[in-house]
Amino acid sequence: MLGSDIQLCFIFYSTLLILKMYIIAIITGQVRLRKKAFANPEDAERHGGVQFCRTDPYVERCRRAQQNDMENILPFLFLGAVYSMTSPSYAAAQLHFLIFFLGRVLHSVAYLLALKAPTRSLAYVIAQVPCISMAIQILMEVASFA
Amino acid sequence: MLGSDIQLCFIFYSTLLILKMYIIAIITGQVRLRKKAFANPEDAERHGGVQFCRTDPYVERCRRAQQNDMENILPFLFLGAVYSMTSPSYAAAQLHFLIFFLGRVLHSVAYLLALKAPTRSLAYVIAQVPCISMAIQILMEVASFA
Amino acid sequence: MLGSDIQLCFIFYSTLLILKMYIIAIITGQVRLRKKAFANPEDAERHGGVQFCRTDPYVERCRRAQQNDMENILPFLFLGAVYSMTSPSYAAAQLHFLIFFLGRVLHSVAYLLALKAPTRSLAYVIAQVPCISMAIQILMEVASFA
Repeated sequence: MLGSDIQLCFIFYSTLLILKMYIIAIITGQVRLRKKAFANPEDAERHGGVQFCRTDPYVERCRRAQQNDMENILPFLFLGAVYSMTSPSYAAAQLHFLIFFLGRVLHSVAYLLALKAPTRSLAYVIAQVPCISMAIQILMEVASFA
Repeated sequence: MLGSDIQLCFIFYSTLLILKMYIIAIITGQVRLRKKAFANPEDAERHGGVQFCRTDPYVERCRRAQQNDMENILPFLFLGAVYSMTSPSYAAAQLHFLIFFLGRVLHSVAYLLALKAPTRSLAYVIAQVPCISMAIQILMEVASFA
Repeated sequence: MLGSDIQLCFIFYSTLLILKMYIIAIITGQVRLRKKAFANPEDAERHGGVQFCRTDPYVERCRRAQQNDMENILPFLFLGAVYSMTSPSYAAAQLHFLIFFLGRVLHSVAYLLALKAPTRSLAYVIAQVPCISMAIQILMEVASFA
């Protein structure tokens, strides 16, 4: 049994964001195949020869998008889970999760389409705001028990 | 007190996979020492001189194995924990966790031994199947409360 | 409602460590701006021209510090949460979390200031000790239910 409405809301957005990360990994793999740019000699050999063990600017872009997701979405999974247990109002919690979700989706789109700066950086900052807010609220809740 | 049999099963495989990640990190460090290929000048200086601040193909391979682990095992820790709370049957849950575990162990072996393609990619796909399955079941469970 | 004293202690240090990771990300961004070394052409164009889409040794150092944090702090979030449920004594739990916290703070300081080796490696090992200890205790707890 899953828990409260707040936890359901958190789990909903978190799971979608993990699927979004998987999609970037799939895109990266497809770009590697299409551009014939493999990270490993054994992959290159299977697809035409070791000369295709090479880097490609768009593959590297996909990897940076994935890396940035990991640096931000994975800590969110922790902060959101703990924040959900601090009895926030449903409206406040939903707003935190939704802003993070939309910020990270925009971040991925801006990264993969190489949108004009500072679109991607703006998306990054937008998504960080609820994370910082949750971290502060968690620390205040912990302090209230001290 | 830990919880249900399903949670114990999930925690068992998850903890083993984290230890597996630590082992790859230890191997990377050992390869750096043996091949004298350090990422930082201060490390190189301690082991013979700044000329050993350099990359090595096998060190890079270890790092890619570690990176792929992070991209897949860390989201599994979230999906598996939530999925365990959705009241799946024990047999189904155990199958999900076991397939993921075996897929990721094979992935690491295939990466570090540079096994012929597509062994590693196959292991990656095998391990992704239970993750996608858990994500879908979580979303269906969340939807059932809406 | 948050839980026991042990969980509060775990959540306190975990949240601080996530904030520490965010700070490294902010520092990386500031160094990119100051040194004019951007990962993406669209960022470089906004800050003077595509010639500033280039790497910089200190930016790479920041990124390695962040990467190492992810490889260690994120698994800690899982191990610490599960370990907190295995009914350890408060003193033992607090010691585990505090050593990890101090080890990781020292690791970041040693990395960003390029302190003489093996300071950083030592901090890494110090922080790994409680993680390995928690992993073993978790596996023993799981085994006790078998």
